Amino acid sequence: MRELSARPGRIVPATENHLSAGQVMAARRSFLAASAAGIAGLGGAARAQNGSTPSDPQGLVPAWTRGLGAPVAATGYGAPSKFEANVQRRQSPGLTRTGEASVSFTPLQNLFGIVTPSGVHFERHHSGVPDVDPVQHRLMLHGLVDRPLLFSMNDLMRFPSVSRFHFIECGANSGMEWGKVAVPTVQYTHGMLACSEFTGVPLSTLLGEVGFDTKRAKYLLAEGADGSALTRTIPLEFALDDVLVVYGQNGEMLRPENGYPLRLIVPGVQGVSNVKWLRRLEVGDKPWNTREEALHYIDLMPDGTHRQYTWIQEVKSVITSPSGGQVLLERGYYEIGGLAWSGRGRITRVDVSIDGGRNWRPARLQAPVMVKCLTRFRCDWRWNGTAALLQSRAVDEKGNVQPSLAQLRAVRGARSIYHNNGIKTWRVAADGEVSNVEVA
Amino acid sequence: MRELSARPGRIVPATENHLSAGQVMAARRSFLAASAAGIAGLGGAARAQNGSTPSDPQGLVPAWTRGLGAPVAATGYGAPSKFEANVQRRQSPGLTRTGEASVSFTPLQNLFGIVTPSGVHFERHHSGVPDVDPVQHRLMLHGLVDRPLLFSMNDLMRFPSVSRFHFIECGANSGMEWGKVAVPTVQYTHGMLACSEFTGVPLSTLLGEVGFDTKRAKYLLAEGADGSALTRTIPLEFALDDVLVVYGQNGEMLRPENGYPLRLIVPGVQGVSNVKWLRRLEVGDKPWNTREEALHYIDLMPDGTHRQYTWIQEVKSVITSPSGGQVLLERGYYEIGGLAWSGRGRITRVDVSIDGGRNWRPARLQAPVMVKCLTRFRCDWRWNGTAALLQSRAVDEKGNVQPSLAQLRAVRGARSIYHNNGIKTWRVAADGEVSNVEVA
Repeated sequence: MRELSARPGRIVPATENHLSAGQVMAARRSFLAASAAGIAGLGGAARAQNGSTPSDPQGLVPAWTRGLGAPVAATGYGAPSKFEANVQRRQSPGLTRTGEASVSFTPLQNLFGIVTPSGVHFERHHSGVPDVDPVQHRLMLHGLVDRPLLFSMNDLMRFPSVSRFHFIECGANSGMEWGKVAVPTVQYTHGMLACSEFTGVPLSTLLGEVGFDTKRAKYLLAEGADGSALTRTIPLEFALDDVLVVYGQNGEMLRPENGYPLRLIVPGVQGVSNVKWLRRLEVGDKPWNTREEALHYIDLMPDGTHRQYTWIQEVKSVITSPSGGQVLLERGYYEIGGLAWSGRGRITRVDVSIDGGRNWRPARLQAPVMVKCLTRFRCDWRWNGTAALLQSRAVDEKGNVQPSLAQLRAVRGARSIYHNNGIKTWRVAADGEVSNVEVA
Repeated sequence: MRELSARPGRIVPATENHLSAGQVMAARRSFLAASAAGIAGLGGAARAQNGSTPSDPQGLVPAWTRGLGAPVAATGYGAPSKFEANVQRRQSPGLTRTGEASVSFTPLQNLFGIVTPSGVHFERHHSGVPDVDPVQHRLMLHGLVDRPLLFSMNDLMRFPSVSRFHFIECGANSGMEWGKVAVPTVQYTHGMLACSEFTGVPLSTLLGEVGFDTKRAKYLLAEGADGSALTRTIPLEFALDDVLVVYGQNGEMLRPENGYPLRLIVPGVQGVSNVKWLRRLEVGDKPWNTREEALHYIDLMPDGTHRQYTWIQEVKSVITSPSGGQVLLERGYYEIGGLAWSGRGRITRVDVSIDGGRNWRPARLQAPVMVKCLTRFRCDWRWNGTAALLQSRAVDEKGNVQPSLAQLRAVRGARSIYHNNGIKTWRVAADGEVSNVEVA
């Protein structure tokens, strides 16, 4: 048994609309009832609202126990409880000018485990969400191939399939953290991140079908069927390794905003390369240097040059609880929890610091720890009521260690947008408020 | 490369409303275009519907590529494509008389991987779905304990947590298969089955908090807060092993129909014991023999007696594709796919037969293979156009082998409702129709 001799503490959000009902109740009740009340407290808050009945003169039985609930739904597709309405994707005000070329962020502070519910998977669109008819949709595979082919969805779904859990992180995730602390919560600092169980066909299988020029072929171009016809260069070595042409996400068909009915999954590579609404793959001998590769998704370096084709999302982690915008209401036990991931393989270790990186202790990693997949970590903490600086630092199986912001800036400067995998700091103030701070 | 020298075949449903759009297109197009058309077929069905424009005189560019799609949604919580509207939970007509004491089945034939989307997780309610307010909800832990306690949701969510993938199967799943073939599709034969990533507190942690009488304590009673106040006896050895008090499912809070805000997860044990809307756990010294334990969820044996407290869901598997109600439109390659699980641990092997159990060959198991969790299996098959009898047979790490119906009936008879883990047979007719048959 870990440090549980005292009762768990409480954690609440400063702004309730960023936390779920399950996470805000302490704020509403904190002056009414003690935590984990002894049995004499039976009823508590519930009693006040239930009212008495002849068989329950003290009003101990809540309304939902006193009759029938809702029948099995006629619609046949469920939704979250009304009490969870605040758990949603959110756009960052002012970040984008239109809803079509926009971003919405995953509410990481509300989530558990490693599966991101498809309903709150972050979005990044260049021309909005197309309404693709799967019967009409085709994937063309052409270029330096022996036999160009056009695949219907049905064709693709008949191939031998695989299912794998992988994260997707936008290359611009944490981009607002380069220069200064600009956003208050982990939803905005790290919420262009999600993890799903994907099902589809290995791209290597499709390349085997069309054959390709083994001497000249070096890259593929992937193109989406949306209005932006977004295009990205994919190295052939990735395509022959673990790239998937995907139709399934978390057990069902892809959601429209995640590429329905077909997308590319390039495990470990920045989100934009995981082309949604995939309609074309062209085999070629050099990178295409497309608009989205030349003008965006490039790393501005301290000397004013840009790094191009920095595909991989490097080892990274973030504490999601406690995190910015939340409040610790009392001293005592807290579970520090968060997510770690690496585009280069498995996470092997996460350390947590409560003093801004001076001292570290290992966190527990939740099994199964999978390749290029989110890994949930947890660490016990007893808050003594003084200010603290919470950090996490991940290590992957290739030995890569998540850098401090100072280490990252020494190489990358502070003017970039993309590929910020620096250690994130949350400050817990003596009054319990948790805020976004920088510790270089 | 496996058997892929010829093109994959086609599979379609006889009744389209049981298959998703992604799975029905071949039926609509089968006489229009060849599968995986050569590049000369560019456009195909899409061209006919797009119409020409000045910049696209041949109408090659589909509508969704010619302009902006939908903006990032204001509601912040997504839903499946309109083309997937037929993927839903379904009630079996005539099986239950009311919507409140009813069952809806998971559309296994539409699903991929091992995660069941929470929106189509099967339902089994005894008094409908209560609308529980998490702020008012309490869990009482009492009985043969040192210090009875009442926990709020906030209390519970502050404890050290774990996340694990587990299946839930109703003890009555495949119940209609005992006597005769009664239902046409895998949704109805095996659809009281689902698998989720659950997050919560080990029950052993909570028992450590209250302490219990180590000499007398042998069982717990779990009680739900719904109108039926459903109660089930749980052996203490399970409670101290892997039972979880759960609030998280597939990354978010439990859905209302799956127990929001709190349920028990008793891995490997029949669904009814995974008490939803959990409000009370009582430690006692013997089974409670409650209504749902004495009148229902008991196994009628050939000699007219009943087996009571048969907790475990034994090793089982089912082929979900091809399965009843689908049609193979042409000879050629098919991937036989399905699910295997065992309440006693990991799946170690699944064999597939295409001749009703005379010959078997091993299927591929999708990693990660987890304890008391669904495991996806796949097997290549080239259909030669003659009748076939498809079966799967699972083996778990304890060496348990899924029995044939004949083996099962030799012990259990044919009048039971519960705990049918017999091998399921789908017949593929020479015309490609797949139907539910019995092979003893």
